[in-house]
This record gives sequence, structure tokens and C-alpha cells, in this order.
Amino acid sequence: MYRTNNCGVLRLKDVGKNVIMSGWIKKIRNLGSIIFIDLRDMYGITQLNLINYFNNKKKINNLGREFVIKVEGKVIERLSKNFKNPTGEIEILVKKLKILNNSLVPPFKIENNTDGNEDIRMKYRYLDIRRDIIKNNIILRNKIYIEIRNFFLKENFIEIETPILINPTTDGARNFYVPYRKNPGFFYSLSQSPQLLKQLLMIGGIDKYFQIVKCFRDEDFRSDRQPEFTQIDCEMSFVDENDILNIFEKFIHFLLKKIKGINLNKFPILTYEEAMNKYGSDKPDIRFDMKLFELNDFSNQKEYIMGISLPVCFNYKIIEEILFFFKKKKIKQLIWIKYLKKDKFKSSIEININLIKNWAKRINSKCGDLLIILLGEKNIIVKNLGLFRIEMSKRLNLIKKKIFSPLWIRNFPYFKWNKEKSCYNSLHHPFTSPEIRDLKFLKENPEKIKSKSYDLVINGKEIGGGSIRINNSKIQKIIFNHLGFSKKKIEKEFGFLIKSFKYGAPPHGGIAFGLDRLISVFAYKDNIRDFIAFPKGQDGKDLMIESPSKIEEKELKKLKIINFI
Amino acid sequence: MYRTNNCGVLRLKDVGKNVIMSGWIKKIRNLGSIIFIDLRDMYGITQLNLINYFNNKKKINNLGREFVIKVEGKVIERLSKNFKNPTGEIEILVKKLKILNNSLVPPFKIENNTDGNEDIRMKYRYLDIRRDIIKNNIILRNKIYIEIRNFFLKENFIEIETPILINPTTDGARNFYVPYRKNPGFFYSLSQSPQLLKQLLMIGGIDKYFQIVKCFRDEDFRSDRQPEFTQIDCEMSFVDENDILNIFEKFIHFLLKKIKGINLNKFPILTYEEAMNKYGSDKPDIRFDMKLFELNDFSNQKEYIMGISLPVCFNYKIIEEILFFFKKKKIKQLIWIKYLKKDKFKSSIEININLIKNWAKRINSKCGDLLIILLGEKNIIVKNLGLFRIEMSKRLNLIKKKIFSPLWIRNFPYFKWNKEKSCYNSLHHPFTSPEIRDLKFLKENPEKIKSKSYDLVINGKEIGGGSIRINNSKIQKIIFNHLGFSKKKIEKEFGFLIKSFKYGAPPHGGIAFGLDRLISVFAYKDNIRDFIAFPKGQDGKDLMIESPSKIEEKELKKLKIINFI
Repeated sequence: MYRTNNCGVLRLKDVGKNVIMSGWIKKIRNLGSIIFIDLRDMYGITQLNLINYFNNKKKINNLGREFVIKVEGKVIERLSKNFKNPTGEIEILVKKLKILNNSLVPPFKIENNTDGNEDIRMKYRYLDIRRDIIKNNIILRNKIYIEIRNFFLKENFIEIETPILINPTTDGARNFYVPYRKNPGFFYSLSQSPQLLKQLLMIGGIDKYFQIVKCFRDEDFRSDRQPEFTQIDCEMSFVDENDILNIFEKFIHFLLKKIKGINLNKFPILTYEEAMNKYGSDKPDIRFDMKLFELNDFSNQKEYIMGISLPVCFNYKIIEEILFFFKKKKIKQLIWIKYLKKDKFKSSIEININLIKNWAKRINSKCGDLLIILLGEKNIIVKNLGLFRIEMSKRLNLIKKKIFSPLWIRNFPYFKWNKEKSCYNSLHHPFTSPEIRDLKFLKENPEKIKSKSYDLVINGKEIGGGSIRINNSKIQKIIFNHLGFSKKKIEKEFGFLIKSFKYGAPPHGGIAFGLDRLISVFAYKDNIRDFIAFPKGQDGKDLMIESPSKIEEKELKKLKIINFI
Repeated sequence: MYRTNNCGVLRLKDVGKNVIMSGWIKKIRNLGSIIFIDLRDMYGITQLNLINYFNNKKKINNLGREFVIKVEGKVIERLSKNFKNPTGEIEILVKKLKILNNSLVPPFKIENNTDGNEDIRMKYRYLDIRRDIIKNNIILRNKIYIEIRNFFLKENFIEIETPILINPTTDGARNFYVPYRKNPGFFYSLSQSPQLLKQLLMIGGIDKYFQIVKCFRDEDFRSDRQPEFTQIDCEMSFVDENDILNIFEKFIHFLLKKIKGINLNKFPILTYEEAMNKYGSDKPDIRFDMKLFELNDFSNQKEYIMGISLPVCFNYKIIEEILFFFKKKKIKQLIWIKYLKKDKFKSSIEININLIKNWAKRINSKCGDLLIILLGEKNIIVKNLGLFRIEMSKRLNLIKKKIFSPLWIRNFPYFKWNKEKSCYNSLHHPFTSPEIRDLKFLKENPEKIKSKSYDLVINGKEIGGGSIRINNSKIQKIIFNHLGFSKKKIEKEFGFLIKSFKYGAPPHGGIAFGLDRLISVFAYKDNIRDFIAFPKGQDGKDLMIESPSKIEEKELKKLKIINFI
């Protein structure tokens, strides 16, 4: 038997008990006449008193940090108590000590403030996990799994596993392929999302589906992306957009309440257009205000005019930085205006005072603010003012870190024209239903179509996205046509979907949340890797298990493939 | 709004309510003066009364099976009640009816007794799922997920996701490979099990881990195997074999109680040797007795003698069938003895009556039994009598279908000599700890070593298997050597594991259960495919989504591979 108790549970009331405990040596303190060991396991730290080994120091001298030991002894009250540690009022008077395993000196400190850089921590991830900070992230993740499932169980969703080995679709520059041994030239693809299969579940009469599921995307590296990532995937039948927004807003409320103890108000809902016009972003961070304002109606300028107001002390260094910011973005027409005091302004170029006053009023500027006004092509200005807004929020420290500001963005434009390929791209995905009122544009004016789509954004991060789906084969085909898919491609890759729509496909829709990002947002962090037990690093490599790696010729032969460089 | 109620909830008490309902048309009964529709959704069937459409039959005539409709109407009491259906006392007097989607005539009947063969049902799996029998399997699976997690939560296990894209190991004839785009010649492998990663979690100080996880094995097809399958994967630190057997026996008791309402006694535990000697199998079906018995000590025969007793009426047809069974197995020396009455036997060859009496007594034969005695090489006889035992249990109908007879098999031999390759194979897996008392054989007599391994068998099926693991780099290396792994291979593929053992690896062990098989056993079925939403068929193909399939040349180019045939 390795233990009667773990290292986190003993208290004063246990004094006098004989216990067996096992764990890792976190620290040895040799005070000469007495030696203490901090014994650590998953659950806590308990102090061992080794006074019985006063005449047998040889045994103690063999011990080192991270050795695994088993001790037997009696729980006694400590002389000097440590009230910061839950077990800090007692210690174990050790009678027997057995070394279960040795340890080399770890390559970095097993402490929250470690001296290990990211690479070495990834290479020895099993040691990194021993640190409280990573261990607690893993425990947090587990808690979130539990509450996610509690919610969906309560709401009568059914968890269903969908296959990971699915059929390749050729538009997927982001597919991982798996050669099929039994037929050369044939491949599986790793599922990028259960999108089509969950739609088929709805067509199969499953009413409410969810799954916490691994998805795979062969993308180039970013710090908040992983080649394999986890999605909370959901789909419902007989629902419209509002049904979906309601239930999944309830879901996020539930999680925030259970995990963070936070109650939030109803989430704001913006259309894509509103979000762009107000924040210059389809994933606006609304932890701070500082909106953008269109200013055209006060001027007969042909170009689009838009402004933003900064609560910033005026100095030429800041002006210079701002000018530099926009110069990098190739924005040429910029006006800055300092709101000195009532009806008194200083501006980078001479402008009619009434125009300035109108602008300042529209932007809700206050005395002391700095107004930045851009002129030019609408899309470019909006987008860059959006980026500027985020940049300035950081420089001006406008974001109170520990708050949550979720909102819904809905009604994305369906299509975006792809000049290179002379066809449309879909802004959401091609299984999204167009707005019914826009169906009249479907054939002739597709760029006017809005989609029944919605994203959940929290603190400027896209946490989830979904849509009401197409359940009509004709509409689905027209959409595919606009996207430039050939008839052959449609038949080969989506033939089963279009066919399934002909057998009583119900109205349905759903959403998927990025679990890794959701957890990092819950923990007020940017890096998702710290919330994954074994994340991949730069370029999708796993430094610990050295993956990917070369495989033998004979394995390639079995797959009937040859590599070339 | 698509519905105020689903199709399974309305009862007599709801009479008078105005409701909106949506679903599929299961059946239309046109009685001339009145038309009824059975409306079906996930939750049940509700009868629609269309008497209001008496003068508008055109609309009704457009409807067909599996059309998706939405109706508004009032709940009324039925004239002729159907007490078999929970909603059978009421019907909906329809005032408005809207077709939400049409349906072609389905290619097979959406009934439990369908006319669709397996291929057509797989091709239209979304229609197959509409059948209660498959839908209920999916719901059962969901219930099992929930209870699995309830158990592990209660026992303080932490659910942790481990990566699916891992490093290839070359002994794996069963690897699926994933080409790594950024470096030709490099591959990921799809995880066959989280074995090493869960061990690293233990080394990382995680105390109790579990995961319901997809695993991948490129095996040739069998009806109870799938290329992607689901495992309940578990690992614990600071445990010995008995700790593991206790907790996971508790787990199975818990599931059987929650899912089936069944209370079982403590599971029997047999060593591998006992199981082979008594049942001729390492996964014995103990729903019936009919053990094998060694008979050598009553004879000076050099060859091994073993017998079994069948409660079977004597006739020459059965004798012939039995002889044919063993002839196919190339068993040459067989004696049959009919126990006619006390001290009276009839045997296929002349044998000393005392010898016969001794044999019959040893085998616990009763008057009327037929004794089958084999002579020959022990391994061959034991194995074939084991197969014969199962075969006869079917022919003699000895198995009461709806019972559960679990048992543990433990202490498998560690190694089996592989003549072809001149090295040992491991019977469990190479990370299993040898029995401590057998460590003395490790270098010179490895074939004498037993392992700290255990399988859970229910009704003759291996449901789970696991072991106490090695946590010592020296022992691990010796094991790898016996398995014929080169130094280079050990370093390349398992270097990280061996290194991890040097940093305070705790004693640990675990188990993994095959979830797909577990569910099928719970449902008293053999075919696991009916318990998977979208299973793969013959040869790992998905007939619905047509996967695997060909990919374009340009995709192959990106991966820097060429196919040859």
C-alpha cells in the first residue's frame, strides 16, 4: 500500500494518527539537528519531520529534489505553523522512509516562477505539469468539461461522437491527409469540424446534439492556433436564430456563473455592419468604449470620413506615434484635432470651426480629448481605425483585465468577391442559410445577401460561431456555384449532403465554440498552450515526443507512396 | 417558432391546449371522411387529426412519408385510444399545416423491422438513424458516457485530452500516418492509444487520469473492429494491482447498476494459466460451466490428456460432427466415451474401465454425458478444447442470453518467442511491469516471467486490459532488448519515455476499456457498428460520405508525395 492519505488532506484533527504517504520531494531543509522535507503530490504539500533519522543521515543524504518516496509515521502538531498551507499546522513524524524512485536534478525549477524557457518546458512537459500553474490549468479545464456537460445534459442535448477519418474536400488547403493502405491514391482527411456530420444527425432526427471534439487543421502557426484543437460542437433542429442565440447565451452565462462566479447582463447583439461601423472589427473588444463615428454628413467631401476620440494628454510624441501607426498602414489623409477647452481646438490642418464642433459633438468628445479623423476608402479606413482602437486601448491601458464583455455579431455578408479566382468566397461557410428576405438576390446579386450567421465574441476574441443551415438542395447548389465549385466537385464531395436534403431535412442550425480559447479567456490569458496538457509548439512540432518524425522506407512502401523533396 | 411541444409529451391533461408541433410524417391514414397523420420526432409520435382539411384534400394529397411539417392546432381527446403509445390518448385537431420540407420515398422502411440491407442502410445512415432501434442505441451510448463520467468524477479522476497526432513507432504495422507538409519524409502517426502520454501524465504528478478517447488502428476488417474506435482510458499513480482491480471492478458494478439495474457479486479472478487450463481461453465465457480437465495423472501416457464433458444426447450424428470439428483443427487423437449409467460406459476405443471411471469422476461427468478426451501437445489441445467448448455451448444452447458474467484474468506470461524474428513478443505490451518475484529471470530466462497485467472479460469478450507499468529506465531497456528493438530505435521512439523515468517516475498503472464493445455487450449484441453513429463498413470505407477517396495531384504535391501502384 502506497498511502493512507494524500498530501493535501491532513489537519490538526488528524494529530495522533498513523499514516502512510507517498509523493515527490519538493524541498529538503537540513537544519543540522533536524531535517524537514516538503512532500508534494497532486493534492498538496505535507511537511515531514525526520528527527528520527538524526543518527542515520546517510539515508537522508541520498535524497534529492523530485525523488519519489513513501513514508510511514505519525501526524503531530507543528511547533511553528504555516497558515498559508492548508496542511501547515501539522507534520508527519517519520518512522519509515522508502525511496520509490530516484530523480536527476530537473532541468528547470518546479515552481510557478520557473527558470525554464518555453522550449525546455515543452521538451520536459511532464515536469512542467508538476508546476501548480500548469496543473491548475488542467484542473480548470476538467472543471469546464464537467460544467459544459452538466449544461447540455440539463438541456436534453445528446453527446454523439462523429468520425475523425472522413472524406477529403479539395478546397481545404488546411486538410491533413491520411493515406489509405488498401487502395493507393485514396486518402482519408482528418475532420476539420463535424459540420456535415452533425447536419446529417439532424436530418437523422436527432433533436439536439453536442460533442466536445478534436478537430484538425493544417494551418501555419499562430500562438492561438494548434493543428489539433478542441471544439464544443452543437446543433439543433426546429430552431431559428433567436432560439440558438438564447440557448447558447444561457450556456455562456451558466459557465461564467459556475466557473467564475460571475453574473452578466444579457449580451449585446450587433449586426456585422454595426460592429464594423462602431468598432472597425467583426470581433470588437467592448471592455472599453471609444467607438468610431462616421462624419460624412457634416462635410461635402466625397471620400469617406471617420473619426475616433482618445482620452489622451496632448504631446507631439504621441502625435508622431499615431502618424507612424497609420503611415505603416498606408493611410495618407489624417487630421488630428486637440479639444483644448470649450469651443477651442487645435488641429493639424485649418478647418472650419463649425465643422470641428459638429465632429466633436458627434464623436462625444470631451475637453482634453484628441480626435483622429481619417479620410479615404471606407473599408480601409474602418478596418484601420479598428486596429488603431485596439492598439490605443493597450497603450492607454483602457482595459480592466478581469472583466468579461461578451457580445453577439450576426448577419455577416454571405459572399466576398475573390478577384484572383473570379468567384465568391463565403464569409462564414457554404452551409449557412441566406437570410430569407435576401433570397431574391440569390441568383443575380449575391453580394447583397446577408447570412443567418452569428459569432460570439468575448473580450475581442471570437469564441464561437455558427449559423442556421441550408436544408434545401437547390439553394445549396446555387451557393456552391457562386463559390466556383465545379459540378463534378459538388457531386463528388457534397453529393451525399445534397442527396440527404431530399429526404426530409428539417430546419436546423448550430454553433461551435473553440474550447482551448474559451478556457484561456476564462483564465484572462492569451496563450492557449498553457491550457492544453500536451500542446504542439512552433510549426506543429511536439518537442517532447519528437513528432512528426521520419518513417521507414518499408512503411512508405506499404502506403504505396514515395517522398520527394 | 417551430414548436411549443415535442411529439412525445402531450397527455390527457393537456386536452384543450393550443399547440405548435413539428416533425416527420411517419404514416398517413386516409379513411375517406377523415385523415390521420402520425407525426414523429426524436421524442415520440403524436397523432394529427386533419378533419378540418376535408374540403382541402389537395393540400393533404401533396404530403408523403418523411415530409417535414409544422402544424398548429388544439389537443383533443381521442375517440379510439392507443394505450401502447404514451401520447395515445390524445390527438391534435390541426388548424394550420405548413410543409417545411419535402421528402423522396426513402430507399428503405423507417421501421425497426426494415427492408434495407446493411449496405443501403450505411449509405443512407441519416435515414437509418431515424429508426428507433438505432436512435435508442445512440441514446444508450450517451447515457453510458454520462454514467462513466459520473463515476470518475466521484472518484476524483481528472479528464485530460491527450494528442491524437503523435510520433510514429515503427513496430506498428497498424499505424495510420499523416504526412507533415512542412518537411517531406516526416509524418505524424494517429494515436493507437494514449498509453505513453498517460504515463507521462502520471510522471507529471497527475494522480488519477481518465479520458473517453478516439484511437486509431489500421487493421484488417473484423465485425467487432473499427479503424477508429473509442476507449475509456485510465491511469493512476501510487497503486498496485489490487488497487486497480478494486476500483475498476467498482466501475463496472456502477455501470451495470446504473444502466441495467443489475447487481453482481464480486468478479472471479483467474490467472492466465488457470483460465487456459480450465477454459482453454484467456477470455473465457463463464456464463456456462463445462470446464476442461487434465487427465494425465491417471495414465502413463506421455502425451498430454485433457477432457470435457457434454450434457448431450448420444447419437452418431453428433459424434460425427464432433469428429469433423477436430479433424478440421488437425487433432488426431480423440476418444469419446458415453456415460450410459452407473459404471457403464461406451467408448470409441477399448479402455480400462477403472481409467474411464477415474476420468469421468475427475470431469464431474454425470450419467448421460458424453466425454470427449484429447491426447497430444498441451498448447494445441487446450486451445482447441477451448474453441470446442464455445462451439458446443452454442449448439447445446447453454448460454442464457441476458446475464453478465465478468471475470478478471491476470498474470499473463510476459514474453512469447517469435521464431521468425528470433526475438520475443510481448503478450500484453512492453510498458507492463514484470512481476517483482520474476525479476530474477529478466536477463537469462525471460520466458519464465509473468507480467503485472490484467484483462476484464465479460461474457467471453475482452472488454478491458491494463497493467502496472515499468517506471525504471533499466528494466524498460532490458524489455526493449528482448523484443529485438535496436538501440537506435529505442532512442528514437522511446527516448523521451526512458528519460522521463529518470526524473522521479512514480509507481503507476492503469487500464483501458473498449467503449464500443462495452456498449454492445451491455445491449447483448455482437455487432458494434449499430452502436456507433457513423461507423465504417467493410475495409474501413464509409459508404455514405464516400471516404476514403482520391485527392487531387496538387494536394499530393503540397505533401511532397507521389503515389505508385
